[in-house]
Amino acid sequence: MKLNCDLGESFGSWKMGLDDQVMPHINMANIACGFHGGDPDVIATTLTLAKINNVTVGAHPSYPDLQGFGRRSMALTTSELTNCIQYQIAALEGMAKIQGLTLSYVKPHGALYNDMMANNDVLATILSAVASYPSKLKLMILATNQADKHIQLAKQFNVELVLEAFADRQYTDEGFLVSRKLDGSVHDKPTILAQVKQLLQTGSVTTRSGKQLMLNAHSLCVHGDNNDAIELIKEIKALCD
Amino acid sequence: MKLNCDLGESFGSWKMGLDDQVMPHINMANIACGFHGGDPDVIATTLTLAKINNVTVGAHPSYPDLQGFGRRSMALTTSELTNCIQYQIAALEGMAKIQGLTLSYVKPHGALYNDMMANNDVLATILSAVASYPSKLKLMILATNQADKHIQLAKQFNVELVLEAFADRQYTDEGFLVSRKLDGSVHDKPTILAQVKQLLQTGSVTTRSGKQLMLNAHSLCVHGDNNDAIELIKEIKALCD
Amino acid sequence: MKLNCDLGESFGSWKMGLDDQVMPHINMANIACGFHGGDPDVIATTLTLAKINNVTVGAHPSYPDLQGFGRRSMALTTSELTNCIQYQIAALEGMAKIQGLTLSYVKPHGALYNDMMANNDVLATILSAVASYPSKLKLMILATNQADKHIQLAKQFNVELVLEAFADRQYTDEGFLVSRKLDGSVHDKPTILAQVKQLLQTGSVTTRSGKQLMLNAHSLCVHGDNNDAIELIKEIKALCD
Amino acid sequence: MKLNCDLGESFGSWKMGLDDQVMPHINMANIACGFHGGDPDVIATTLTLAKINNVTVGAHPSYPDLQGFGRRSMALTTSELTNCIQYQIAALEGMAKIQGLTLSYVKPHGALYNDMMANNDVLATILSAVASYPSKLKLMILATNQADKHIQLAKQFNVELVLEAFADRQYTDEGFLVSRKLDGSVHDKPTILAQVKQLLQTGSVTTRSGKQLMLNAHSLCVHGDNNDAIELIKEIKALCD
Repeated sequence: MKLNCDLGESFGSWKMGLDDQVMPHINMANIACGFHGGDPDVIATTLTLAKINNVTVGAHPSYPDLQGFGRRSMALTTSELTNCIQYQIAALEGMAKIQGLTLSYVKPHGALYNDMMANNDVLATILSAVASYPSKLKLMILATNQADKHIQLAKQFNVELVLEAFADRQYTDEGFLVSRKLDGSVHDKPTILAQVKQLLQTGSVTTRSGKQLMLNAHSLCVHGDNNDAIELIKEIKALCD
Repeated sequence: MKLNCDLGESFGSWKMGLDDQVMPHINMANIACGFHGGDPDVIATTLTLAKINNVTVGAHPSYPDLQGFGRRSMALTTSELTNCIQYQIAALEGMAKIQGLTLSYVKPHGALYNDMMANNDVLATILSAVASYPSKLKLMILATNQADKHIQLAKQFNVELVLEAFADRQYTDEGFLVSRKLDGSVHDKPTILAQVKQLLQTGSVTTRSGKQLMLNAHSLCVHGDNNDAIELIKEIKALCD
Repeated sequence: MKLNCDLGESFGSWKMGLDDQVMPHINMANIACGFHGGDPDVIATTLTLAKINNVTVGAHPSYPDLQGFGRRSMALTTSELTNCIQYQIAALEGMAKIQGLTLSYVKPHGALYNDMMANNDVLATILSAVASYPSKLKLMILATNQADKHIQLAKQFNVELVLEAFADRQYTDEGFLVSRKLDGSVHDKPTILAQVKQLLQTGSVTTRSGKQLMLNAHSLCVHGDNNDAIELIKEIKALCD
Repeated sequence: MKLNCDLGESFGSWKMGLDDQVMPHINMANIACGFHGGDPDVIATTLTLAKINNVTVGAHPSYPDLQGFGRRSMALTTSELTNCIQYQIAALEGMAKIQGLTLSYVKPHGALYNDMMANNDVLATILSAVASYPSKLKLMILATNQADKHIQLAKQFNVELVLEAFADRQYTDEGFLVSRKLDGSVHDKPTILAQVKQLLQTGSVTTRSGKQLMLNAHSLCVHGDNNDAIELIKEIKALCD
């Protein structure tokens, strides 16, 4: 089970995330491309960190909304969304090549990620954008009970999916994350570690209603916002090894 | 003598330049990368135009200043300037690859171009940025009486230069463009065509003071802002063929 | 019947609209505030034009989306939308005061205008933002068959509405504009002038289905994109005088 | 001696400074206007904090450079700089009025502040921009040995100056701040408190060369970046009261 984390989300003089403390403990770095966070300097620094720690790098493209941190859905046309994503992939891939790194995958960010999971047309647009990019890239999406359909759709575009699960979030019976607005949607530490163990041993999570849901995730998303989060990543990593 | 032109400088709903009318008559397209003009949609459209017309594509990076159209000098550190340029090259190269095009060269834009010609430290930073980019790229600069020194500096970075001349601008004895603020700095049509002929036949221009100055330029910069400009490009092209 | 027009939508080096030719023929200038078009220089120039021509000035705020020209809906929270609008009103009002002008009204732009007309929650947020601004400002919205309800809602916020009609667009029976994607949605010149006459004489338009719909509009929106549009404005103005 | 602090420099999801902890201990808040930091939401929140703590509010305008945090000099024309500053003042003043607050002064930020102190043409442009703004506003600049000349220049524009000193920085004999690149340029805590005491008792600082330099500052600039800085502000405040 590979650990992935959103990184490189600082911007200019504003710092976000303890990237240098996270990087030694993860396998896959989802690196912001400059449209919701990240800038050319932050991208270069983050790629260097990934290289030193031998971490696989992915592009983390977003709607073009710095102030909203890519968390506000935007009504882009298919063509606008395609070009928006490919520009970001291109920028990150080239910056990675400079450091001798190969871009491996794409994980949409924030509202774009949510729109992709809620709307198959958006997913198809993203798959098409990734497929028509000349380098072979995987697409990371949420592992849900729709995974088989998603994998089938991705096959039509000849794109391999990476299915990710969340350690710290409660699940619906459909395999979506329970809204943060609801009580119990974000787990405490013992529940997080229990959810990780269950994912590792059985491939399943226990949903909000108490149901066992098979996710068969390839990767686990973790967060590196503060010192407690770093400690948690270490414990999750220890379970995975 | 290859004709080059700054293209893809529209942004969002704002159009600039008659790109589709220019493209059939030029050899090299300097394509804006999104920092002074251009956006992912404009870049895609411009690359398609270049492909259809079999035009060589170059990246046209700028200081990050959309409102100022990259015409205002900015005090970036060496590291900031390097990353700023490489991000733009990367974005454009990846977008070009999607369409099966190969990026051939880099021509800095506006204030960055002027700073490069006025300051060898800036030139060295740009050469280093281009040199460390993993694809083999040339750098386009102004052909002046310093060309030999510039070529020597570029050789230290293993970068090939493309020296460009201007058809429509009066020259100083040093081979720099006379400031637009001075009378006579921008030629009328007969003088432009005469300057092109002289460049083609002798490699020289006649400077403001009346001196013959050898430029040995590889390329000629033209503009496609309006219908008159397009007609002029056609006449210049006819002279070059 | 006052003529209003969206103006000041140039940005940096990119020109949009023949503002100086439009201004002498209109009564109300909806001036972009920098979030979809306009910048501090364009705003200053546009305000000067309005002053010279004795035109009433309004703020034309937008979602924060320069590349999309404010035409892409964005999922802002109520608080974000309120602050976004008030910042733009404030910037424009202050710039107007410098030139001795008083800001009179607010007309939302593009996707924000459409969202306001489609969703009463958005309208209420905008009314609240305008109401809590310390200067007395009117709000310009589309005159539809819901006008009475809109006026009633606005009264709760103590905001006066300016109802506007369109000269060049076909109407649905509900008083909304027929989508540009449909044939016949944008009138030819004779139909435009006929629609203006009908609005002036009876206060009504003839809808796509042939129904007479009373609009009782206070203002007529015109466009100044090109020379033909300017000629049309002059003819419409002649009918209104 | 009034304490002033740069505040409201967060942007979107990125936090900067402990504004809520600083505000109770200062007299004047220099609030970012959105061009180097701050956004409509951050501005609204910061103004509310100022109101609750009865703190005088000033506009803190910058070159338009979010990524560079306004710390990179930009070659704006006089007209561009004037409009750039007035737009920011206008936005902040309007947002302040919404909360019943009156804007009192302007303090340029970062590279613009440095350029103003190094170049009397820039200072004159800023004075003119402040003077032609319809509300009566003071301008905050660095107290140096040129203060008399600066006051004289400001009088020509009918603008009152607020002269500020720095508690934590070493001074040159001319009253400028010693470059951060030099050893000893940033004081330790005992030296800071000693410098504050000297300023309060004699109006002077001891320069790097050991000279006594009279500054006659009206205000003292403090910083609220972290918990240690907050503690320091409290001690400085105690000395001032």
